[in-house]
Amino acid sequence: MERILAHIDDHFDAHLDQARRFVRQPSISGEGIGMPEMARLVADRITELGGRAEIVPTDGWPVVYGEIDQGAPRTLLVYGMYDVQPVEGETWMAPPFEGQVVSLEGHGPSMVARGVYNTKGPLAGFFNVVHTLREVEGRLPVNLKFMIEGEEELGSVHLPQFVARHRDRLRADAAYFPFYMENAQGKPVMWLGVKGILFFELTCRGGDWGGPTVRGIHGSNAVWISSPTWRLVQALRTMVGPDERILVDGLYDGVAPVSADDEELLAALARTFDEQTILQDHDVKRFKYDLRGVDLLRRYLYDPTLNIDGLVSGYVGAATKTLLPHEARAKMDVRMVPNMEPETVVATLRAHLDRHGYADIELRVNEGYPPAKTSVRQPVVQALIRAVRRLGVEPEIWPHLGGSAPFYLFTGELRLPFAMGGLGHGGRPHSPNEYATVEGMKRFEKSVAAFLVEFARG
Amino acid sequence: MERILAHIDDHFDAHLDQARRFVRQPSISGEGIGMPEMARLVADRITELGGRAEIVPTDGWPVVYGEIDQGAPRTLLVYGMYDVQPVEGETWMAPPFEGQVVSLEGHGPSMVARGVYNTKGPLAGFFNVVHTLREVEGRLPVNLKFMIEGEEELGSVHLPQFVARHRDRLRADAAYFPFYMENAQGKPVMWLGVKGILFFELTCRGGDWGGPTVRGIHGSNAVWISSPTWRLVQALRTMVGPDERILVDGLYDGVAPVSADDEELLAALARTFDEQTILQDHDVKRFKYDLRGVDLLRRYLYDPTLNIDGLVSGYVGAATKTLLPHEARAKMDVRMVPNMEPETVVATLRAHLDRHGYADIELRVNEGYPPAKTSVRQPVVQALIRAVRRLGVEPEIWPHLGGSAPFYLFTGELRLPFAMGGLGHGGRPHSPNEYATVEGMKRFEKSVAAFLVEFARG
Repeated sequence: MERILAHIDDHFDAHLDQARRFVRQPSISGEGIGMPEMARLVADRITELGGRAEIVPTDGWPVVYGEIDQGAPRTLLVYGMYDVQPVEGETWMAPPFEGQVVSLEGHGPSMVARGVYNTKGPLAGFFNVVHTLREVEGRLPVNLKFMIEGEEELGSVHLPQFVARHRDRLRADAAYFPFYMENAQGKPVMWLGVKGILFFELTCRGGDWGGPTVRGIHGSNAVWISSPTWRLVQALRTMVGPDERILVDGLYDGVAPVSADDEELLAALARTFDEQTILQDHDVKRFKYDLRGVDLLRRYLYDPTLNIDGLVSGYVGAATKTLLPHEARAKMDVRMVPNMEPETVVATLRAHLDRHGYADIELRVNEGYPPAKTSVRQPVVQALIRAVRRLGVEPEIWPHLGGSAPFYLFTGELRLPFAMGGLGHGGRPHSPNEYATVEGMKRFEKSVAAFLVEFARG
Repeated sequence: MERILAHIDDHFDAHLDQARRFVRQPSISGEGIGMPEMARLVADRITELGGRAEIVPTDGWPVVYGEIDQGAPRTLLVYGMYDVQPVEGETWMAPPFEGQVVSLEGHGPSMVARGVYNTKGPLAGFFNVVHTLREVEGRLPVNLKFMIEGEEELGSVHLPQFVARHRDRLRADAAYFPFYMENAQGKPVMWLGVKGILFFELTCRGGDWGGPTVRGIHGSNAVWISSPTWRLVQALRTMVGPDERILVDGLYDGVAPVSADDEELLAALARTFDEQTILQDHDVKRFKYDLRGVDLLRRYLYDPTLNIDGLVSGYVGAATKTLLPHEARAKMDVRMVPNMEPETVVATLRAHLDRHGYADIELRVNEGYPPAKTSVRQPVVQALIRAVRRLGVEPEIWPHLGGSAPFYLFTGELRLPFAMGGLGHGGRPHSPNEYATVEGMKRFEKSVAAFLVEFARG
């Protein structure tokens, strides 16, 4: 292991150049810029490292699929993405597609580039580790498979299609998502899962029940013609009480109790968890509940949520204009905690609206997938924990994220435990001056090398 | 009277040219196009007719003030406007600032031009009547004062200022607003007043109570951080019940009972009032109430309303984006019926929000003025009714409009009874192909001539 770490130190300038090779190729999925070129670059890199790679078409941007078979007992499926967010209209301190290293206040020398944090930097770093292990050991301790998608920034639209079509090729012992997990305070944060999400839209339009049906009409008619806007407000009010508690009967049904393992993780987490930092980071004065520590964390992680992401009706410009709108829309989401399923939630919401007399209100689902998590006891998770501890770091372990990602594809579709993370720090994803610290990029590679060695051990 | 009507018939081509002179001069207050030129044209017209005119500055577009003093016992204050709506982006069958006469299906020969209906046509027509009376009789039977504003399409922003500053000059026996009052079905509809309006905005932002204070934050935080959007929904729900009845304590206080005169008008009105036409015109399937005739009319005219004109919060684009918004806004209005005052309504709304625990929700008033109406018994109203009857027409008389206009300036500030209307038909105000029928323009002039004669008689 020492030889491996020393090799990373000795060749790190060349490793940075590999990361630079990736970030220099723009690959903006949302604008269709440089996507085939980037897919080719990733596939070529896998081939350079002795693997086989294929650019597999989907109904959207292709997936780069690769294999490095070493005849090892265990196989790891590496998930990643080759697309990045747009930079249109942003002002950067260094060109976003060059990979300059600049000194950032509070962070030291850092590479500033679109994608260097999210997530070309970690992906390039992973490949550097593969290269290093082959240089030092002659071979890898595990077999690798790669599934590198080009639509993560679009919501992984066609990844389910790819997974369904290539289930057999994707067989492995575990999945892994390379990512820098040290936050701005230098704390290494490790998540064992994600919440699910149901993103949907409620639309109330005038119809047989009343209200204008075709266009907004003069506001003076509100006195004798019903308002779809008021109707949507009334319907929403049946779904959530003044204390923000969800009133939709059955929405909490099936929510899994917190497991003993998770309670243990929560207790540990509460020792380093800092409520004030959360409030400050979000410019919020107080939480929804007068709770602290484990009790607050339990709410955060295990409560389903019904959120209004957006609400619009009628005239919302600066002027004075009276209008009786013909339509009101709410964009909403339910964050789903373990054991919740999008289909059940949709049925529950629909039944609630119908039961309260709002059968006319349209419920249209935009997107939905269930939560996904891996037990802390899984070998792949334990391997990652041991790896960072070998580098002298004690991770803060979260049973799962408050956020969502379609990792049910691993846990549900492919029945694979998964782990994500690695040391390293970066920031400002989706924003100007996205960065990763040079020191963190190096620490990342060392932690990944240790992870692969630990994972091979089982 | 016969000689007057014949003179109008004989000289009507010249009269149409006068209307054309007005519509050919663009005068778009909202875009600042042609405003001084149009004010000058109106002032010149008053001078041509033997009066004195002045273009009086305000903090916005000037008001054209004029007088034609005939030493008559009675004085009429004519209110009008010289501004029109924009035509930007509209497609017209004839250029909007030419005044072409074209044959319109269902309407016959009509002048198509911006402002010909709203309201340069009626204004030019009124001046034509003054010209005719002077030609035929040598003098007018009444003294005239003119107050022609340039900001009607902007909400008459500086008209209160003008009235306050020139109260003495505006003394008269009654006010009159020239307008074509025959609707698309050929029915002459006469309104004796308008509702008042309070236009305001409610804004709920994150603050000491919770919620994001500076910007929208990641939607996953909705599980432990409160939502200004849900809070606004909850607050709105306290104001109006599921049956759309207003729940704001005190909002109905002071609402005047329907007077005996108005009940008589309602009973007459119900004989010609057609519910189905209202529904069809607005593409609405049913009214808010299962009422008909007088009962429905009573609601329409004498119920205050609390309407949501617009509602907005968070992300309302087409994509999937989870967000916990930091702000939610509702643009709202209260239509005020007789005896309601904007100041009282504001205080009532504020007290309601405070009492329900929403003291943090901002209530900002954009505009507000009380209702205004004139009794059917007033001589100016009776004169207009007699005038149209002399031309063989029985008007449908409404105690007041469902809509609003700042006519409290007449009834309240200046203590003047007022009347509005005249025969004639036009349509599509604020829209492409705004028109007035040539036949209607002629009927308008005849009815105005009869009105001035009747008004002089008392």
